[in-house]
Amino acid sequence: MYINDLYGDQKASIGKEVKLNGWIRNHRKQKKMGFIDFFDGSCFKSIQIVYEDTLANFDEIQSIHIGAAISIEGTVVVSAVNADNIEINASNIILVGDAPEDYPLQPKKHSIEFLREIAYLRPRTRVFQAVFRIRSLASMAIHEYFHNKGYVYVHTPIITGNDAEGAGNTFTVTCLENNNYEEDFFGKKASLAVTGQLEGETFAMAFGKIYTFGPTFRAENSNTKTHAAEFWMIEPEIAFCDLNQLMDIEEDFLKSIVSYILDKAKDELEFLQGFTKIDLFKRLEKLKESKIARVTHKEAIEILKKAPNQFVFTPEFGKDLAREHEKYLTEEYFNGPVFVYNWPKDIKAFYMYQNDDNETVAAVDLLVPDAGELMGGSQREVRYDLLRDKMEKLGINTEEMYWYLNLRKFGSCDHAGFGMGFERFLIYVTGVDNIRDVIPYPRTPGYCEF
Amino acid sequence: MYINDLYGDQKASIGKEVKLNGWIRNHRKQKKMGFIDFFDGSCFKSIQIVYEDTLANFDEIQSIHIGAAISIEGTVVVSAVNADNIEINASNIILVGDAPEDYPLQPKKHSIEFLREIAYLRPRTRVFQAVFRIRSLASMAIHEYFHNKGYVYVHTPIITGNDAEGAGNTFTVTCLENNNYEEDFFGKKASLAVTGQLEGETFAMAFGKIYTFGPTFRAENSNTKTHAAEFWMIEPEIAFCDLNQLMDIEEDFLKSIVSYILDKAKDELEFLQGFTKIDLFKRLEKLKESKIARVTHKEAIEILKKAPNQFVFTPEFGKDLAREHEKYLTEEYFNGPVFVYNWPKDIKAFYMYQNDDNETVAAVDLLVPDAGELMGGSQREVRYDLLRDKMEKLGINTEEMYWYLNLRKFGSCDHAGFGMGFERFLIYVTGVDNIRDVIPYPRTPGYCEF
Repeated sequence: MYINDLYGDQKASIGKEVKLNGWIRNHRKQKKMGFIDFFDGSCFKSIQIVYEDTLANFDEIQSIHIGAAISIEGTVVVSAVNADNIEINASNIILVGDAPEDYPLQPKKHSIEFLREIAYLRPRTRVFQAVFRIRSLASMAIHEYFHNKGYVYVHTPIITGNDAEGAGNTFTVTCLENNNYEEDFFGKKASLAVTGQLEGETFAMAFGKIYTFGPTFRAENSNTKTHAAEFWMIEPEIAFCDLNQLMDIEEDFLKSIVSYILDKAKDELEFLQGFTKIDLFKRLEKLKESKIARVTHKEAIEILKKAPNQFVFTPEFGKDLAREHEKYLTEEYFNGPVFVYNWPKDIKAFYMYQNDDNETVAAVDLLVPDAGELMGGSQREVRYDLLRDKMEKLGINTEEMYWYLNLRKFGSCDHAGFGMGFERFLIYVTGVDNIRDVIPYPRTPGYCEF
Repeated sequence: MYINDLYGDQKASIGKEVKLNGWIRNHRKQKKMGFIDFFDGSCFKSIQIVYEDTLANFDEIQSIHIGAAISIEGTVVVSAVNADNIEINASNIILVGDAPEDYPLQPKKHSIEFLREIAYLRPRTRVFQAVFRIRSLASMAIHEYFHNKGYVYVHTPIITGNDAEGAGNTFTVTCLENNNYEEDFFGKKASLAVTGQLEGETFAMAFGKIYTFGPTFRAENSNTKTHAAEFWMIEPEIAFCDLNQLMDIEEDFLKSIVSYILDKAKDELEFLQGFTKIDLFKRLEKLKESKIARVTHKEAIEILKKAPNQFVFTPEFGKDLAREHEKYLTEEYFNGPVFVYNWPKDIKAFYMYQNDDNETVAAVDLLVPDAGELMGGSQREVRYDLLRDKMEKLGINTEEMYWYLNLRKFGSCDHAGFGMGFERFLIYVTGVDNIRDVIPYPRTPGYCEF
C-alpha cells in the first residue's frame, strides 16, 4: 500500500488499517508522543504519522533519525489540526534503516547549490520530488500524445559517424588513446549525436509521422544556466507537411502536454509556485488557452523597429533576434507566445526549405514569455540540387551523406519537423531556472559526478 | 486522412470519399486500368488503389515508378476479388515525388543482408514496417505499464565518470586527440554508461519505484547476432522489495507487455510469423499464460545432472549455465519460461545481495524457450561493510563511489531491480534473429553508417 492510495479517495481512507514503507522527512518529538513527516515517493504529498507512548518501543522510535527508512502500521484518521486532511495513528513503527545524526537533509532551508552537490540525495527533498515527478509525467505526456496521434517512436542512433550540423562541438567516442581512428572500434571517427533529425527523416518517409525522444550531446564549453553537455530532445518529423501545418502541430502538441501537467501535477506545481515565486498556474493556463500568434521574421523586425523601447541591439532584417527582442515580442507586444517564421537563410541550418524570395527559409521558432525560444522547426529542403549545393558550400561531405540526399530522389514529399529541448521545456514548466536542477545527474564543463 | 482510419471500421468506410498521401509499394499496369499497392505508414496494412483510363492523366499515372510519393482521391469500395477487403477507386492521382527506375526496393524478395545495407530505405519494406512498428508499440507498452503502476521514469546519465561494472568494454567520451583527461571537457576520463542501475538506485530511495529506459553502450568486440555496441535497456528499481517480490514484478511486467503487443500488433505478428516461419502467436500466448517456474541455481544443476541428454558442457554447481542447459530447462524440462535464482556469487556482480549460505547471491535470471536469458535482476547488497569490501576486492574505487555506498547508510532498505535488454526482447517477440534488424541504425564493430 502507498500514500497515494490514501489520498486518492481521502474520505474512503478514513478508518482504514494500513501498512506503509517509506522515509522520515521530519521527526518532532514530545514527551508522550511524536510526529513523523513520512513520504514514500508514491505521490508528491507526505503524510503525518502520529505515535504515542503506548507503543512498546516508544523510546526506540523517538531515537530514529531524520532520513531513516521505516515500516509503519496504523489507522487513517482525520487530522487533529486540519479537518480537510488525514494522518495516521500508528500502532506499530519498525526501523528498517536509520540515518546518522548528521544526515545531510536536515529539515531546514538548503541552498539549491548545496543540494546540487548531493545530487544523489536531493530527489528526497520536496523541490526535487516535484521537479523529477514532473519530468517523469511530462515524458509520459509526450509519449502518449504522439502514440495517440499515430506517430511511430524511433530510437535514432546516439553514436554517429556523420557530422550533421556542421563541424565542432561534438564529443568523440573512442576506444583508443590516440587519434588513429582507422584502428578504432568503428574503423572511423565516431561522435555523440547532436540531433536525431536526419535519421528521423528517413523514418518519416516510411511511417509518415515519427518522433524521437532521446539524449543528445553538445561539447560546448558554456557554463550558463541553460547549457548542459547531455540533454534530452523530442524531434517529431511529419511527411506531407508544410510550415503552416507544422505550426498547427507544434501548437497542439505544446498545449496538450501543458494541459496534461496542469491536470496531473497540481501538488507539484503548487509547491514549485511557492518555491520559485512564479505564478506557474497562470503561466501554464495562459499558454494553454492562448491562440499562438504567427508573424514572419520580417514582420517581427518591423514591430521591433516601431517599439518605444530602447534596445541595446538594434533590430535588423537578416539578423537573429536578441533576448531583449524576444522579451518585447512575447511579454509586451503579443503578451503571449508567438511563432516567428521565415527566417533569413544565412543564420539557419542547411536542411531548411528555401523560400521563393531567395532570402528566407521556411523555419519557425516558437518564442514564449519568460523563456524565449522553446521549439525550433522547419519545412525541409526537398530539392536535390539546391540541398547538395548548400551542403557543399558548408563543407558537409555529400558523399557520406548520400542517403540523406537520396531521400529527395526516392519518393520525396514536403516534410517538416521540429525539435524541443526537454530540459528547456521543464525549466519553463517548473520555474526552476538552472538546467542543472531539472536533470537527475547533469553534465557540464568540468563536471561529470555520480 | 490515413489508411488506418479506413481499416478501423471497414464497413463504415465503404462509400466514403477519401484523400490520402503515401507511397507506391507495387504498381501493376494493364491496358485500361492500373493497380497500386499503396501505403502511408499509419498502420501495417497497405491498400489497393484501382485507377482506370477514364482519368485524364492515365498515361502519366502509368509511368509513375515504384517508390514514388503520390496523393490520391477516390471512393472506398469492397474489393473486387475479396469481399472481406476494401480498396479505393481513384478519381484523382497526383505524383508528388517520383522514384527512379532503378529504385532499390523493387517488389521482389530481397535478402535481409541487402536491406541492412540500405538501412535508410528498409523501413519502407513490410518486414521492417512490422519490426519498427512493434519496437514503437513495445516502448509505449513499457512506459504505460510503469506509469500506471506508479513508477517514476528517470533519465540516468549516458556520459559517466564511474566505471560501475568493473573495468573495460566502455567507450571513452573525449574532446581531445590525446589522453590527457585532466585537460578534457569534464576534467577527467568519461565514458558511455553500460547501465543506469546505480544512479537508478539513488532515485528508488526517493521515489520508491523507478525505471530507466534509455541507451546503453558496450565496446565489446563481438561480431555476433546478439551483440551491438549501442542498445536500449529497461532498468526498474524498487525499494522495500526482496528477490521473491522482484520475480513477481518481472513476471507481471513481461506478461503485460506481451499481452499489449498481442493485442495491438496482430497484423505485424501475422506477417512476421510468415516471414520467420516461427509460430509467434503460440510463443507469445504461451508466455502470457504460463506460470513461470522458479528454481534455485542449485536445483537447476541437479535437474541437469539427472537429464538424459548428453551435454557438451557438464553442468556444475558454482558455474554458469551453458546455452544447451538453458535450452534443456526451458524447452524440455519445464517446457516454458523459468526463473533461476540464487546464483553462485563469484560469477555475478558485486552489488548483489549475499545470501546466508555465503556461497550464493540473491540474483535471478529469467530464461525463456528459444531465446535464453531475457531479464537479469537481483536484490541489492545493503550491508555497507560487506559491499565496500567486495568493491575493494574488485578494484572499484570506493572513494569515487562514496554516494553508492552511502545509500546503505542513509535510510537504507531492501531493494531490488532488474534489467531487460530491449533488443533481446524484440528479437524474441518478432522472431527476427539478428540484433542488427531490430535497431533502426545498428552500431557494431567496424560499422557506424548513417
